[in-house]
Amino acid sequence: MEDYYSGLYTDFYELTMAQAFFFSEKRNSSAIFDLYFRSNPFKGGYGIFAGLEDAINGVLQFSFEKNDLDYLASIGFRNEFLDYLADFRFSGNIHGFREGDIVFANDPLLRVESSILEAQLIESMLLNIINYQTLIATKATRAVFAAKGRDVVDFGLRRAQSMGAIAATRAAYIGGAKGTSNTFAAKRYHIPAVGTHAHSWIQSFDSELEAFRKYAEIYPDHTTLLVDTYSTLKSGVPHAIQVAKELAEKGHQLRAIRLDSGDLAYFSKKARNLLDKAGLENVKIVASNQLDEKLIASLLEQNAPIDIFGVGTRLVTGGEQSALDGIYKLSSIGDVPTLKLSENEEKINFPGKKKVVRYTNGDGMFAIDGVLLADESEEQIQMLRHPSIEFKKTRIVQEGLAIEQVFFPFVEKGAIVAPFPALENVRQFSRERFALLPDEHKRFVNPHIYRVGLSNRLFELRRNLIEEGQSHG
Amino acid sequence: MEDYYSGLYTDFYELTMAQAFFFSEKRNSSAIFDLYFRSNPFKGGYGIFAGLEDAINGVLQFSFEKNDLDYLASIGFRNEFLDYLADFRFSGNIHGFREGDIVFANDPLLRVESSILEAQLIESMLLNIINYQTLIATKATRAVFAAKGRDVVDFGLRRAQSMGAIAATRAAYIGGAKGTSNTFAAKRYHIPAVGTHAHSWIQSFDSELEAFRKYAEIYPDHTTLLVDTYSTLKSGVPHAIQVAKELAEKGHQLRAIRLDSGDLAYFSKKARNLLDKAGLENVKIVASNQLDEKLIASLLEQNAPIDIFGVGTRLVTGGEQSALDGIYKLSSIGDVPTLKLSENEEKINFPGKKKVVRYTNGDGMFAIDGVLLADESEEQIQMLRHPSIEFKKTRIVQEGLAIEQVFFPFVEKGAIVAPFPALENVRQFSRERFALLPDEHKRFVNPHIYRVGLSNRLFELRRNLIEEGQSHG
Repeated sequence: MEDYYSGLYTDFYELTMAQAFFFSEKRNSSAIFDLYFRSNPFKGGYGIFAGLEDAINGVLQFSFEKNDLDYLASIGFRNEFLDYLADFRFSGNIHGFREGDIVFANDPLLRVESSILEAQLIESMLLNIINYQTLIATKATRAVFAAKGRDVVDFGLRRAQSMGAIAATRAAYIGGAKGTSNTFAAKRYHIPAVGTHAHSWIQSFDSELEAFRKYAEIYPDHTTLLVDTYSTLKSGVPHAIQVAKELAEKGHQLRAIRLDSGDLAYFSKKARNLLDKAGLENVKIVASNQLDEKLIASLLEQNAPIDIFGVGTRLVTGGEQSALDGIYKLSSIGDVPTLKLSENEEKINFPGKKKVVRYTNGDGMFAIDGVLLADESEEQIQMLRHPSIEFKKTRIVQEGLAIEQVFFPFVEKGAIVAPFPALENVRQFSRERFALLPDEHKRFVNPHIYRVGLSNRLFELRRNLIEEGQSHG
Repeated sequence: MEDYYSGLYTDFYELTMAQAFFFSEKRNSSAIFDLYFRSNPFKGGYGIFAGLEDAINGVLQFSFEKNDLDYLASIGFRNEFLDYLADFRFSGNIHGFREGDIVFANDPLLRVESSILEAQLIESMLLNIINYQTLIATKATRAVFAAKGRDVVDFGLRRAQSMGAIAATRAAYIGGAKGTSNTFAAKRYHIPAVGTHAHSWIQSFDSELEAFRKYAEIYPDHTTLLVDTYSTLKSGVPHAIQVAKELAEKGHQLRAIRLDSGDLAYFSKKARNLLDKAGLENVKIVASNQLDEKLIASLLEQNAPIDIFGVGTRLVTGGEQSALDGIYKLSSIGDVPTLKLSENEEKINFPGKKKVVRYTNGDGMFAIDGVLLADESEEQIQMLRHPSIEFKKTRIVQEGLAIEQVFFPFVEKGAIVAPFPALENVRQFSRERFALLPDEHKRFVNPHIYRVGLSNRLFELRRNLIEEGQSHG
């Protein structure tokens, strides 16, 4: 469970292409690739960019050990190329968004500049890390948004996609989760570990009351009691109240009860009522059981008095959307802008070396992202254009927008140039950034589409290359 | 990327419960847990049991290093318990299905017998491993079934859930995939690595033809050409044919072309036609692009002449179902059978120490699984009962069914008692077992439900415990 990436953690075709580049005149051709997604996850209005630190560390660790090279030799790779791989270290540049920032479809999230061979080798690993963590950080932010200030904690380990669980917890924390049941990830990432006991604890004793008492005796100040083993309202909650009173007599306080089945709106209201009547207003209610952002929103619309939401399967796997379709497209080769044609105009990438600038309203709220050619001065951009629709233009000056830098260097000539903030600070940064996104982009159903526009030069470059390309082949 | 499981790879509540058991009189109580799922994945008729070797290795590795214990101490665990964890090794027994076998909802997949403390600590890890690999092996088998003898290969790394990619490839191979793009997993598990080149290879050259020629020059006997960079039919396929002829002149053969966009049925037919007209009947067609079992079935219904299906995202994440809801339920404590009640009768588990027997028809085809109490002699079972519906009974003898053993010991007193077969053999075993499942359970829409019945004694035990439990609490 080491946090280390092998050079073999790549699609095989990256290696066959790399060898082909190695033996061709293209070996040292400079290339630029953009990593981005074309649709926001969950049909939502935004994404939370996550996985950056792991991705950068992965790129810089990316190398081949003796037994990796032996393996590649055994399946036909040539010695001269393997000698090259033996010394492989990424030596290019990576720019992009800061981890935790709010990002949108068509924003270049990362820009990789290096020889085509190097850029190609790290592709699969970058996508593997960024796609997943961005998906899960976004899912977490949606759940936290739905919870309106109540806590959301990650309970997903047992249903996570194998060791993906570790990155899931990291990403969920960036997205706003408060804690995790995944103890390994809690330790690695300094995230609060949370949890209480299972039904099996109750079943192990002759009675629920005895089981509750025993647990409270061992954790007098940290007890959450699971109340739905027999009957939530006839047995679980009354027994929890009894134990809470016994704890109070000894100067302790029951922390919470947990509901893990049944109609959570109904049971939470009934349980809250019983607790309050017993003077236990401070005892919180934790709810879990196949929750996601939509169920949380529904529970709160019904005024369910739930304080903490334990979100598992659907948080760590993404639920109905289990992958972010992030892609990595060549936008320049040998310093010449390029693009990949497609029958579907929206799928044609943006050519050239680019950067992203964010424009904000007078109140600092995000208004529009501008994708510019890297040598353009953002101060001189008057207008941003819709990527495809000719007449759609945003006049920056007339709208009174201010420029904000969102695209930064992380790796230059193979070395890290910006230290990584502590994960807690990434989480805090993400919360602050999310507050600057206007509400109409946050709703779950038909969110307002955030604009990502192109500079006029980029728009024209793309149009010209499309026309050229159609006569090409 | 080590294949090693930390003792912290567990839900936090397993640790808090373990400490509570440690300081209670239940510390050494014997317990039995069953790991199983209640609904077949993908609304299908079966599951492919996978993850066993990783799970067993994980259980036997499960231990705590000094820095794990320091971490637990820092968040309040007590020294006496930490001393116990310092020497922790699982010392119980694990029985279950062989890896690769066909399994069904309500079959106990694994039976764990140990002290309750030990059994509880390993719960989350077991579920994390088995849930995911079983999900993906099942998904792979569905895709392979749809492909009717054509090859299915795993292209999922870039969209997989982070390092879940490694287990995904392993499980997909068990389920029948022929190869993988994930080079790390290919090496670890001795799975054929497959892949060719990306669009970026083509874009790196002045023309598609030049790019094809260069690739074929470097891999004269292993070239698959991606033909959809510019125009599949006007440019890609004609250029591939030209290169194939040039290769043939030098005594080599183009292996395949690959389609990665557009209408795969339409383009594969047109491409096949062009290839055949050029005398290139041996050049295969590989297709990829958001495929899954249903799209494969649809393509073949349309007679798309595709030889190899590259399946990515939806294979390695499960697509629309991204988790298997496998559970781990206490069925015996202190040698006394127990169950967990639920408002939903189908959710109430099967109590006691059990085993599974499979009954087959005269032709060896699977007919019904029997869940029996472990001390029952399967030879003497006359009848199996539906778990809930009183009148539904299967009379074993009258149906002329034969007994097959499917439930085996893997760990006894903490030591492995059955060597693991090579993964290739697990895959082969799974293919053979799948052939013994009647076709009506294999279809995707409304598959016939395979019967999993209870012995009469187990049925009565469960009914009695439910009645007792309702007056309990």
